[in-house]
Amino acid sequence: AAEGLEETPTQEPSTETQQKYENLFVTKENAVTRIVLNRPHKKNALTREMYEEIIAALNEAANDNSAVTIITGAGDFFCSGNDLGNFMSISPDKMQEIAVESGDLLRRYVSAYIDFPKPLVAAVNGPAIGVAVTVLGLFDVVFAAEHATFSTPFSNLGQSPEGCSTYTFPKIMGHSKACEMMLFNRKLNAKEAHDCGLVTRVLHSDTFEANVLATVNEMASLPVKSLVYSKALMRGPELEILHKVNVDECNRLVERWTSEDCINAVMKFFSAKEN
Amino acid sequence: AAEGLEETPTQEPSTETQQKYENLFVTKENAVTRIVLNRPHKKNALTREMYEEIIAALNEAANDNSAVTIITGAGDFFCSGNDLGNFMSISPDKMQEIAVESGDLLRRYVSAYIDFPKPLVAAVNGPAIGVAVTVLGLFDVVFAAEHATFSTPFSNLGQSPEGCSTYTFPKIMGHSKACEMMLFNRKLNAKEAHDCGLVTRVLHSDTFEANVLATVNEMASLPVKSLVYSKALMRGPELEILHKVNVDECNRLVERWTSEDCINAVMKFFSAKEN
Amino acid sequence: AAEGLEETPTQEPSTETQQKYENLFVTKENAVTRIVLNRPHKKNALTREMYEEIIAALNEAANDNSAVTIITGAGDFFCSGNDLGNFMSISPDKMQEIAVESGDLLRRYVSAYIDFPKPLVAAVNGPAIGVAVTVLGLFDVVFAAEHATFSTPFSNLGQSPEGCSTYTFPKIMGHSKACEMMLFNRKLNAKEAHDCGLVTRVLHSDTFEANVLATVNEMASLPVKSLVYSKALMRGPELEILHKVNVDECNRLVERWTSEDCINAVMKFFSAKEN
Repeated sequence: AAEGLEETPTQEPSTETQQKYENLFVTKENAVTRIVLNRPHKKNALTREMYEEIIAALNEAANDNSAVTIITGAGDFFCSGNDLGNFMSISPDKMQEIAVESGDLLRRYVSAYIDFPKPLVAAVNGPAIGVAVTVLGLFDVVFAAEHATFSTPFSNLGQSPEGCSTYTFPKIMGHSKACEMMLFNRKLNAKEAHDCGLVTRVLHSDTFEANVLATVNEMASLPVKSLVYSKALMRGPELEILHKVNVDECNRLVERWTSEDCINAVMKFFSAKEN
Repeated sequence: AAEGLEETPTQEPSTETQQKYENLFVTKENAVTRIVLNRPHKKNALTREMYEEIIAALNEAANDNSAVTIITGAGDFFCSGNDLGNFMSISPDKMQEIAVESGDLLRRYVSAYIDFPKPLVAAVNGPAIGVAVTVLGLFDVVFAAEHATFSTPFSNLGQSPEGCSTYTFPKIMGHSKACEMMLFNRKLNAKEAHDCGLVTRVLHSDTFEANVLATVNEMASLPVKSLVYSKALMRGPELEILHKVNVDECNRLVERWTSEDCINAVMKFFSAKEN
Repeated sequence: AAEGLEETPTQEPSTETQQKYENLFVTKENAVTRIVLNRPHKKNALTREMYEEIIAALNEAANDNSAVTIITGAGDFFCSGNDLGNFMSISPDKMQEIAVESGDLLRRYVSAYIDFPKPLVAAVNGPAIGVAVTVLGLFDVVFAAEHATFSTPFSNLGQSPEGCSTYTFPKIMGHSKACEMMLFNRKLNAKEAHDCGLVTRVLHSDTFEANVLATVNEMASLPVKSLVYSKALMRGPELEILHKVNVDECNRLVERWTSEDCINAVMKFFSAKEN
């Protein structure tokens, strides 16, 4: 059930909605848009195509008549972050060009979260890694299953944080706890992520999906204008700084991706995988 | 023992001080100004007159020789927020005019908290609702009795947050915990309010008043200039943004109060009450 | 074992490094610069000379090839703050002049923390007082021994907070918990300091030093550019406000140091000590 964005649907509609995306499963029901990262065999790692699909799905949800949007992962993982395969099979003379393009894609991806006007809910159903963790600071509610984990191994990979986390994380948890994650690769469990304010609520793993959906359906029954205007009051004063932080983080990553630190770390990652 | 602000006192002075206010009980002792919301039969719900009286009492405390000001509630409630009766018996053709006037009153009310130059202490002796919760982010110390609760049912009523809470709450507890309160009507108990930083300290309910007064008297014995200057260092850099947030929140509420969302919700509230 | 910064070394090198400072013990090993406040008989209280030495040692660590810098205290205390002896033996006609000089020294001292470009780690091995607490908000990681305490008795001494704490503390722990420390002299134990976000991690007292060194050595093995650039992304957007807050706090302290409040409190402190 996969079609390109501009193709005429040729398959039977599903019971809920036709699927436009290769790597997402998107449904709309009871004023709730549900975006499922749907690449479970790769732990929902984000390819370039997936970045574009999520941007498109968020853009669609922003403009349709749904009240609340929820993002979750298919299978065991929430999302294992940037697919390191994005770094492979790049010929050295193209490296700078592709780094710049990837920085621009990432910037647009994070902007889609910054500018999303309606309540945005994350249902972290399992491990979350890298950019899947950092953008959580841009969600309005973050539910986590008890066994979910949150890891941000940027310096291990010679990289640096993104998703506006260099701004949102210190604001949420204080500078020094943010440094443990952003600089020193500290992995949090669900309880720790809740205690420091990154996660709104931890729910039992076995009833996670049902609990989350019930809560989100309830949220979506509230007056949508009150939700949208209240979010605008909360986020409005910091939109400008969020966009600036996003640009700065992406520019730094373009430099990092082409650095020896990063190239060595990624090569080490893949050679470890092969052995 | 109630006189208008400009009348000559005609009654016997009370043991503590003459009472100028209809709905407040204000005393000054040991450099502590104590403002008691004194409309217990209505759960200390705020009428337009009470807003004006609190503005006047804060203005007086700002300029007299007291060191610390404390606000608490008479009876079982701290304060049940805006008296929804303020919405009643408004003829439809006056609605816009009265909404604008009420927005201006609310703006001046919240400004009185923003600009209060001395330490301001809340003693939350019982349930707190709506604007009585949101302004807590502008207090310097918040004591709560064990059984106190904190509810902010804005979207339930088709409204939106005020009291600078769209700025102070995300700063205090992080964006996503603030959203649960501001957007999704989540009610906190005293322990939860403490854990997220809204409440400075939770005290036993049965010794609450005595404990609070002892602590506040101790506070008021400190060098008042050190207190005032230290508060100015902490709040000074954000006064401008607080006033801007206050204006934005009030403007939004003027729109909300005249919206179908709000009118329907308030009508539903009163018809439920009648049945 | 003390040499000026520009002298040719004339003594045998120590096993680790030659010691340039009277009151600090500074070593460099495994890309870690370790600065030990080394005046244990005075609880590591900061004299004017020590302020200058710490500025010099931070400046050196910022520009050498070390990756991470750690500050800790020799003996039982981390640091008992400003040596109140700095206030003594000042003739009344010199008071204003010396207050201005001290304000300038403090401003330069705090600036050395604000501008430190690499990860800066505090190992709070025992009680911390005053400015030794307030600058913790400018560290990137704060380890505390279980028995460490954090006290900020500014208003007790007729003074006001410094070290950018009027900005960093409300951001870390929320305004009202910050007020308890900044205005009302509340002393925290290590667990409380951790719960409010001031301390990154609490470690057993008996294995504290070894645990901290192992962790810091691990930190220092990460790609240093990723650490430095990530810190720059986190701190960059607030450098301007931090420097402004620093200036405002120091100006206020110059006024406070020459105030009756402060003079009386310091005299009381020393006469209590004599009796």
